[in-house]
Amino acid sequence: MLLLVSPKDVNEAIEAIEGGADIIDVKNPVEGSLGANFPWVIKEIREVTPKNLLVSATIGDIPYKPGTASLAAIGAALSGADYIKVGLYGTKSYNQAVDLMKKVVKAVKDIDENKIVVAAGYADAYRVGAVEPLIIPKVAKDSGCDVAMLDTAIKDGKTLFDHLSREILKEFVEETHGYGLKCALAGSLKKEHIPILKEIGCDIVGVRGAACTKGDRNEGRIERDLVKELVELCK
Amino acid sequence: MLLLVSPKDVNEAIEAIEGGADIIDVKNPVEGSLGANFPWVIKEIREVTPKNLLVSATIGDIPYKPGTASLAAIGAALSGADYIKVGLYGTKSYNQAVDLMKKVVKAVKDIDENKIVVAAGYADAYRVGAVEPLIIPKVAKDSGCDVAMLDTAIKDGKTLFDHLSREILKEFVEETHGYGLKCALAGSLKKEHIPILKEIGCDIVGVRGAACTKGDRNEGRIERDLVKELVELCK
Amino acid sequence: MLLLVSPKDVNEAIEAIEGGADIIDVKNPVEGSLGANFPWVIKEIREVTPKNLLVSATIGDIPYKPGTASLAAIGAALSGADYIKVGLYGTKSYNQAVDLMKKVVKAVKDIDENKIVVAAGYADAYRVGAVEPLIIPKVAKDSGCDVAMLDTAIKDGKTLFDHLSREILKEFVEETHGYGLKCALAGSLKKEHIPILKEIGCDIVGVRGAACTKGDRNEGRIERDLVKELVELCK
Amino acid sequence: MLLLVSPKDVNEAIEAIEGGADIIDVKNPVEGSLGANFPWVIKEIREVTPKNLLVSATIGDIPYKPGTASLAAIGAALSGADYIKVGLYGTKSYNQAVDLMKKVVKAVKDIDENKIVVAAGYADAYRVGAVEPLIIPKVAKDSGCDVAMLDTAIKDGKTLFDHLSREILKEFVEETHGYGLKCALAGSLKKEHIPILKEIGCDIVGVRGAACTKGDRNEGRIERDLVKELVELCK
Amino acid sequence: MLLLVSPKDVNEAIEAIEGGADIIDVKNPVEGSLGANFPWVIKEIREVTPKNLLVSATIGDIPYKPGTASLAAIGAALSGADYIKVGLYGTKSYNQAVDLMKKVVKAVKDIDENKIVVAAGYADAYRVGAVEPLIIPKVAKDSGCDVAMLDTAIKDGKTLFDHLSREILKEFVEETHGYGLKCALAGSLKKEHIPILKEIGCDIVGVRGAACTKGDRNEGRIERDLVKELVELCK
Amino acid sequence: MLLLVSPKDVNEAIEAIEGGADIIDVKNPVEGSLGANFPWVIKEIREVTPKNLLVSATIGDIPYKPGTASLAAIGAALSGADYIKVGLYGTKSYNQAVDLMKKVVKAVKDIDENKIVVAAGYADAYRVGAVEPLIIPKVAKDSGCDVAMLDTAIKDGKTLFDHLSREILKEFVEETHGYGLKCALAGSLKKEHIPILKEIGCDIVGVRGAACTKGDRNEGRIERDLVKELVELCK
Repeated sequence: MLLLVSPKDVNEAIEAIEGGADIIDVKNPVEGSLGANFPWVIKEIREVTPKNLLVSATIGDIPYKPGTASLAAIGAALSGADYIKVGLYGTKSYNQAVDLMKKVVKAVKDIDENKIVVAAGYADAYRVGAVEPLIIPKVAKDSGCDVAMLDTAIKDGKTLFDHLSREILKEFVEETHGYGLKCALAGSLKKEHIPILKEIGCDIVGVRGAACTKGDRNEGRIERDLVKELVELCK
Repeated sequence: MLLLVSPKDVNEAIEAIEGGADIIDVKNPVEGSLGANFPWVIKEIREVTPKNLLVSATIGDIPYKPGTASLAAIGAALSGADYIKVGLYGTKSYNQAVDLMKKVVKAVKDIDENKIVVAAGYADAYRVGAVEPLIIPKVAKDSGCDVAMLDTAIKDGKTLFDHLSREILKEFVEETHGYGLKCALAGSLKKEHIPILKEIGCDIVGVRGAACTKGDRNEGRIERDLVKELVELCK
Repeated sequence: MLLLVSPKDVNEAIEAIEGGADIIDVKNPVEGSLGANFPWVIKEIREVTPKNLLVSATIGDIPYKPGTASLAAIGAALSGADYIKVGLYGTKSYNQAVDLMKKVVKAVKDIDENKIVVAAGYADAYRVGAVEPLIIPKVAKDSGCDVAMLDTAIKDGKTLFDHLSREILKEFVEETHGYGLKCALAGSLKKEHIPILKEIGCDIVGVRGAACTKGDRNEGRIERDLVKELVELCK
Repeated sequence: MLLLVSPKDVNEAIEAIEGGADIIDVKNPVEGSLGANFPWVIKEIREVTPKNLLVSATIGDIPYKPGTASLAAIGAALSGADYIKVGLYGTKSYNQAVDLMKKVVKAVKDIDENKIVVAAGYADAYRVGAVEPLIIPKVAKDSGCDVAMLDTAIKDGKTLFDHLSREILKEFVEETHGYGLKCALAGSLKKEHIPILKEIGCDIVGVRGAACTKGDRNEGRIERDLVKELVELCK
Repeated sequence: MLLLVSPKDVNEAIEAIEGGADIIDVKNPVEGSLGANFPWVIKEIREVTPKNLLVSATIGDIPYKPGTASLAAIGAALSGADYIKVGLYGTKSYNQAVDLMKKVVKAVKDIDENKIVVAAGYADAYRVGAVEPLIIPKVAKDSGCDVAMLDTAIKDGKTLFDHLSREILKEFVEETHGYGLKCALAGSLKKEHIPILKEIGCDIVGVRGAACTKGDRNEGRIERDLVKELVELCK
Repeated sequence: MLLLVSPKDVNEAIEAIEGGADIIDVKNPVEGSLGANFPWVIKEIREVTPKNLLVSATIGDIPYKPGTASLAAIGAALSGADYIKVGLYGTKSYNQAVDLMKKVVKAVKDIDENKIVVAAGYADAYRVGAVEPLIIPKVAKDSGCDVAMLDTAIKDGKTLFDHLSREILKEFVEETHGYGLKCALAGSLKKEHIPILKEIGCDIVGVRGAACTKGDRNEGRIERDLVKELVELCK
């Protein structure tokens, strides 16, 4: 199971890299759970990250605007991201989500076949009117994505497991694998969640707070030793 | 005064070019008044357009997400657009609009200093909660844009002149020029509006319907002779 | 494939019965697409309907109130309905829909094991904030329902097929059958849709307008000959 | 003056009965102020309650859906409730409230003439868009109900008396009696409110918190001695 | 029964006066059903109106702002209105309506004891979230008003009688009289409604369209002969 | 620079007067940031205030109802206010704000040419959908007002300076002066803000909390010594 860590600046990125993270994820929480960061930040982090590690970038808690999303996706790709994450926030149904993701996939694959496109839903989608999280594997499959993912939309302390049960998450993972895709899970995850995620077959676990001092995603800072611990749990 | 025409496909683009349009504007009305089109469409239209003509692309009726907007802006720039138009739709105030435009300008100028960034407001912004149109010149100036523009948000037959008087538009143009910027105006404009816009000093007039058969932006198609007429009126 | 017809009064019910309908469905469109009718109406229609035919009753475009829904479900069951249809309107997610349906199933089966419980979603759920229609088979399975169904929420002339493609509906039917459940489909269906539904394996097709004079669900009235035609197409 | 107590489970119901409560009220606050509980819970509580005591059941903070409400009302009646309480939450006017209550009364009286139907409004209706509380006596009279009642919609610590003055409540009671109906009042009531309610002629006072340990409706539990105290105050 | 006519300018006011109207009502429908007109218009119409006729002025479809309402009320009184009409639009409950009306009454009576204050509700209040119309007599009584009135909020062709039945309106009139107050009714009324209003004891009937050419309140103009006809029906 | 102080009653008004305030401002915060007080309160405060001091009165966080606003404005003027402040809350654009202010100016100047009309915007207008604050100078100029003002709409501890920078406020003042108008600024201002406001050329600073005991606008009371301190800082 790979560990994806979300640093907020280059120094934290270095800590994450030194700690052994597999994927360095560039986000901008000011703009939302999967808020997009700026081209110059993605570039900067791509530069300090060894070529063998993936750099992930979110394009936003995206509204149902496939055109804007496609342009943002190639903007992220051309800034150095290998892994493009789309927050399916404004898309209210399977139909809207597939429409948007198909266009994002086309836009990204036109740039580079090897870039990875991630369809990300929200475990608490019902709180913000976003598409049903349990339909995300099907959305990912039918639109040509590489990864189906879940995160949480509203960061109020509730974790992924507060919204969806282990059994449901296991079915999510299994359905995703049944389609030949990878599965990523995140959502205020803590150290103790990692063994459960490994057990249900999750491919990529995403964290920030769990890798921060005091487990505090806002006040704390990512530290390499905390990252190392998590990497160990992922093996 | 330059004429900007908004074709919906390559064939219409060719008609616009043959008709003598100065700027070919790639839009996607399905996604809104200034809805973004796809990278492959912008590329295609850039390819058929002579190098001496500018290709304009909108990045959307954009929400207040500077990160997403910046990525979309460079996506459009790297797809071949010379002129990046940002619809200040979700930004509710001067502060939000300047914040977003500053970041878009930085992102675009980092790619290419010569690309033109346009801050576009809506004459009928009050209908959709967008930033006050009359503050757009100041927004453009304070964020480093090249052009201040107005269009209409809701296409219900009402034109730019139904929302703002000639005198107010004249002041808008003068304020923009006072800041050393260019001014573009659009919004279901008809042939008879062009002399007025020329008279008040507008630099770029944007049309679609007026260049279409039967003046119908949806059912009609852009025709070179209609474009020629408009180009003549602009001189 | 069974034909379910929705009469609005006893006379229309008699026409439907004489026309050979398999299921007589008691609804009250004034209260919504799957609006509930009154106990005395359900009773009356149960009395005129031969015992070998099923009487179906909707309990409403139901809000996320499992208690109210359970009470309404047994109210319908005790008024003579064999087939209890729940419109999953106010439930915004898989979790909410399963929670509500589990309780409705328990309430109904406590009354009579043989009564059929139907989890009904809306093909256009995104228009009213209801749960994703494509997750309904899973909702039905995980809550112990007998039938997974789709109808349309907003009656504006658009049919089931205007919202979901034949391929998607086929997958819906197949997933439902994979879970050992029956599948019912409705939504302003017309005569020409019936062969398609039969082809994709639908078990129950629901109509009103198609069985009415002039195909008009509001101004027309159900007529036995129109019902006979539809019955023939269903065989 | 009768004391109505709202237990949350059978054990609390027994405490209430042993404490001398006159009416045992089955509610489900998870679904709202007058949220409906499940058939099996109403049945269970009816079984442990002596035949000479009334069992009351709410059918919900009901939307303006007379069909759904009528079915839920007979569901509650057939589960053993003697006293059916309808929370007039979604009904926005006298007209809507009377329409819904008339149908609920017909449905319940068709089952059993002796069952009591209660039209319940909210003292703080303006906070949730529900029908004006002071028109409830007229609603009850014009629809054939037996009791006019007020509770509070939002449980934020404010009591009935924080929303309506003693004088207004007195007029409410008098108007209700003038129509030959009974009057019930509730809304986070405390011990000290009971003498006032008795003084203004209220027939039934509804409590939960005041009968719980520490006066805490959520964390506390109903205790027979506390119930006894309240019963004494009601005499 | 007195006839109140609502002219839109001085010329129409003269027609109304010549036609024998009892009360000349100055309104501004652009601002709403009971939208306020400007001081200079009220003054102008007061000047052309004989001293023995009352001039009525509305202060608006007023929000729940007693301060603003009180200032507007004395503004209207000091501009020459004898009859101050308050549209209880933003007040959502009896409590809010009484609070606002008490302060308006105090403000107006401080200016001149003889000025008449009218509490006006809307027969279709439920459509705009305004206070229940049937509680208006009580509101008027408890706040010291002189007249209880009903009009309609949304002008879509529906009349007062489309929202409230004759019987309910009769009870409204009777309750108002029981409190010693006068009753005024309006709401897209037509000639044929006047006998009914007279029959139920209404004191003042308000019209505009019925006194206009072609019965058209917007395109038509008030004509003295039409006014005379209505005056006759009122006797 | 003049000091405007907002007392909540006559005693506080006397403290403000004794403390040397230049303008006594009568407000009613219960009705909003610029909520209107009652005619009798404005009169009372006018009576205790020496003739050489101005009495200011707000007419409310006013909706886009020019008629109601004009009547309220003359109501305030005729109650003794010299300085009429209009909170441009419901006006969503330059056009709406100018329309409303033109009519208020006409209404007030018709009463007395020397009364001062203030167009007040909100630094945090975007939070309540009100017109852009930075367009207020232009609104004031184009509608014939005497003063352009900013306050804050939502009182949550944030001050004027939390919403707009010193530089932007300086431009606001300069633009206002460029139009020959005066400029007033307020918004939970503290003592330390006064030198900054003086420095940028503000003409009138408005306070309440800073003149209260404990700096608490709600729990504290205006005290003459605190007022004196502020007056000194203003010189």
